[in-house]
Amino acid sequence: MATTLRTVLAQLNMRVGDIDGNVQRILDSSVHALHHQQADLIVFPELSLCGYNAQDLLLRASMQTRIERALARLCTALPHNLHVLVGYPWLEHNQRYNCCAHFYQGQIQAVYKKQFLPTDPTAFAQRYFTPGSEPLCIDINSIKIAIGIGEDIWQNAFIEQASAAKAKMIVSLNASTFHLNKQAEREQMLSNHAQRAHMPILYASQVGAQDDLIFDGGSCSVDAQGNLRQRAPAFSEELCAVELQFTRSDCHVERATVEPLLSEEASIYQALMMSLRNYVEHNGFPGVLLGLSGGIDSAVVLAIAADALGADKVQAVMMPYHYTAQISQDDAAAQALTMGVDYKTLAIAPMVEAFTQVLEPVFAELPSTANDTTEQNLQARCRGNLLMALSNKNGYLVLTTSNKSETAVGYSTLYGDMAGGFAPLKDVSKNMVYRLARYRNSLSPVIPARVISRPPSAELSPDQKDADSLPPYDILDEVLRLYVEEDCSAEAIIQQGFAKETVMRILRLVDISEYKRRQAAVGPRISKRSFGSDRRYPITNLWPLGD
Amino acid sequence: MATTLRTVLAQLNMRVGDIDGNVQRILDSSVHALHHQQADLIVFPELSLCGYNAQDLLLRASMQTRIERALARLCTALPHNLHVLVGYPWLEHNQRYNCCAHFYQGQIQAVYKKQFLPTDPTAFAQRYFTPGSEPLCIDINSIKIAIGIGEDIWQNAFIEQASAAKAKMIVSLNASTFHLNKQAEREQMLSNHAQRAHMPILYASQVGAQDDLIFDGGSCSVDAQGNLRQRAPAFSEELCAVELQFTRSDCHVERATVEPLLSEEASIYQALMMSLRNYVEHNGFPGVLLGLSGGIDSAVVLAIAADALGADKVQAVMMPYHYTAQISQDDAAAQALTMGVDYKTLAIAPMVEAFTQVLEPVFAELPSTANDTTEQNLQARCRGNLLMALSNKNGYLVLTTSNKSETAVGYSTLYGDMAGGFAPLKDVSKNMVYRLARYRNSLSPVIPARVISRPPSAELSPDQKDADSLPPYDILDEVLRLYVEEDCSAEAIIQQGFAKETVMRILRLVDISEYKRRQAAVGPRISKRSFGSDRRYPITNLWPLGD
Repeated sequence: MATTLRTVLAQLNMRVGDIDGNVQRILDSSVHALHHQQADLIVFPELSLCGYNAQDLLLRASMQTRIERALARLCTALPHNLHVLVGYPWLEHNQRYNCCAHFYQGQIQAVYKKQFLPTDPTAFAQRYFTPGSEPLCIDINSIKIAIGIGEDIWQNAFIEQASAAKAKMIVSLNASTFHLNKQAEREQMLSNHAQRAHMPILYASQVGAQDDLIFDGGSCSVDAQGNLRQRAPAFSEELCAVELQFTRSDCHVERATVEPLLSEEASIYQALMMSLRNYVEHNGFPGVLLGLSGGIDSAVVLAIAADALGADKVQAVMMPYHYTAQISQDDAAAQALTMGVDYKTLAIAPMVEAFTQVLEPVFAELPSTANDTTEQNLQARCRGNLLMALSNKNGYLVLTTSNKSETAVGYSTLYGDMAGGFAPLKDVSKNMVYRLARYRNSLSPVIPARVISRPPSAELSPDQKDADSLPPYDILDEVLRLYVEEDCSAEAIIQQGFAKETVMRILRLVDISEYKRRQAAVGPRISKRSFGSDRRYPITNLWPLGD
Repeated sequence: MATTLRTVLAQLNMRVGDIDGNVQRILDSSVHALHHQQADLIVFPELSLCGYNAQDLLLRASMQTRIERALARLCTALPHNLHVLVGYPWLEHNQRYNCCAHFYQGQIQAVYKKQFLPTDPTAFAQRYFTPGSEPLCIDINSIKIAIGIGEDIWQNAFIEQASAAKAKMIVSLNASTFHLNKQAEREQMLSNHAQRAHMPILYASQVGAQDDLIFDGGSCSVDAQGNLRQRAPAFSEELCAVELQFTRSDCHVERATVEPLLSEEASIYQALMMSLRNYVEHNGFPGVLLGLSGGIDSAVVLAIAADALGADKVQAVMMPYHYTAQISQDDAAAQALTMGVDYKTLAIAPMVEAFTQVLEPVFAELPSTANDTTEQNLQARCRGNLLMALSNKNGYLVLTTSNKSETAVGYSTLYGDMAGGFAPLKDVSKNMVYRLARYRNSLSPVIPARVISRPPSAELSPDQKDADSLPPYDILDEVLRLYVEEDCSAEAIIQQGFAKETVMRILRLVDISEYKRRQAAVGPRISKRSFGSDRRYPITNLWPLGD
């Protein structure tokens, strides 16, 4: 005789600080799972009640009172004949724990405290939480189920506990952040652990974006042989049903849907769209505006914005100067027209000339008064000021268009093209920007072909090309990946076949641009090592270059 | 018969990433301590070899090789007849430890691994270090000495270990960060622990500043009765000699100097000076420049800069507009003259008018075209652009002049008066800015009296006063302290006697300004809860206001 266990993994967009709203989401989903999916058990993400990552909101004195009230409400209002697992923070003897409560029959039947805290800097787990010291198994339909939260499931010691406790399956609550190919990493880990423990693992995770963090969802299930049996669609809310059939010796996973994995470009494009949409909508901006230059970066940002928010919420501004090519203006206007967004042109010459005249007598005393980065930065800053003035008047969020390659080497102007509240491409390398452009055009052509094919230029001086001051982006991006994401030394990078002079130049630019990055707008994290969250270098230091 | 132990606490400014330089500092100080101070033992700060806080430099592959080389050099080059304690990071079986080596007779006699890691967010200790699991005592002149690093000494469990091991004294290596009245906290804790353990404690700490962190020094010694017997001068390098006389039953601390404690104003003023001086000198800036408005904030920043760097390294720029009072220009010029700094005037009207004209047709379509924050921000941003252009040309570091009160409520313009590389007053409340001004003038009058006495104004619209849009600073600062530093709820603040409407308005301003603070320049931390390092709120959240 087989025992059936119908589980629903609730891949929801829980909101930070919105305890009442999250309780409602939990109640609505539970009722749906019971009545429409005949669920025995529903699993909500890690820290569902307060949202992830609530950061210092966790320290507010009223957090505990609010959580207590929310738990009491759930006891009363959850369907009594459904098992429900909910994550939340909990204070006990002055220690805060990352907990999971098991609700059933109008009561909390058991509480698990997360045992393994991650050390990655996006979580700051040690600032807020004390690790729990005991594993927990619960019984549902006489099936013994081990409960884990977040980092637990990545630890062999946790899997060994579940085996030692003779659990029949593992259920894991998560708020797992996205980076490129993260889903494959999760599934590989789950497969290894399931095989090792000879039990299925059900993995529920949150979806949505919170400031720089992206939660892609990725809820999935593997059977006791380590085969993937269920995968939720990425980047969307879903109540994923999984049916398990337990016999005395075995367990089958049935009636579950395996969504296909997305391509790299599709996953990043969707991640960036969701991140921007959540940031704009959750912060109540009426729309976004950006400077459209005729170049690839602003073209891709415009496409993402219009796709994510709808064309009526996007304003594009072309701000030409003497060095702006006519084709830049034509291409910018063409894309704006194709995408149906508001488009205007504001020339910056009057402001640039006003600055130049005021500064002329001061600079005349100095050795060189030629057009150098000072004058180039002035152009960028006049553009930044214009966008900020428009934003001040209409409340639209200014998007900055710098990509990760530029941010890495400081090829951008503080308070100029770096001015703005959100940077969609902050963690996207220049080569990936091109890949995203081609990917987007493969769905429907919105970015003029010439924007993709012409050599990139900041157009801040006559006939300027990026290639005049930077190595080709193929080389730049790979050297940056090795240095920034892999922590390789200059020597190790040179050994891979790059010219020493090029490598040292790039590394030096990265090192001296740290101060700029500290003042950069927030933007979505799509790599394991983003600027802002994951890479913390001292500005002031005497470390030997590239060592 | 008494046993004598002469110890030197080496309160030095170790440099981040400068392993060779730090080794040289250790060697020079050791030779001096042996020959001029007849020391038996010299104690260097926590993580002396790599400097504190090296952050992700600790992850570089070559760090371990460099540390190994440094330790070998110290074995060879340190005086063989001196006991030397040095802090450094160490990789072992893929775990990194925060260690202290005991050098003697050309060898490392013993290694201690820090057991208690701090959870405060300025340290990020868990990102880099694994806690050690064993206490260590070393023997010098038959005196048993327990070794601690940083957080260890704050933990009762550590003191109990030292007692259980029957140590005769404790030596603690530190890189302890400054905040107001921190020295009193340190000494109180040391006194309590010494009394409890019935043994003296010697506390050596680093001095100097590193980005936002300030190390005030604060090296000191308490005897077995908990009395303070030695205190180093704050904010300066010093090799502090402490002589201990051990009898069978007792221990006396002799021949040590107790420097007086500084007043609150003096300690903050010196902290800000040291922080700016270290930032400027260690990053190789030829000097600093700032906008001088005739107001109190820029007056105090100018005083700190001229005092810290010398007048010849400071340039002040007055950038008047229609709303700038004549007395503002007079007072700015007077202070610049008194302090002997370079001073110039650049009017911003041509740029503001150029922007206004370009924007006029765009704004004409909108309901209101009156002078609102858009126009005010334009003025501030024209000033920011001018300062950045000057900085671009001469390489001087732009100082921003915003204080903590303004930063808290967002009473500053992104890319305007927030433009710059270093913010000396970032963690200083408006009231403390006034106290610092009076303190500085008590040494010698450099800030015109009228700057201190006149009502503060941003001078961005006709007859504007801060008090028109903000509560009086006495009230504002106290409400901010309760909310930002003490995490009080609105209800708790109102119970202290503040008007509900005022409190809710202030708290709302703090909450909605989080995005601005993310893009603020780095500045010295002088409180327990600074923006930037210690207070991490999500930008996007639905937490109920003031709860």
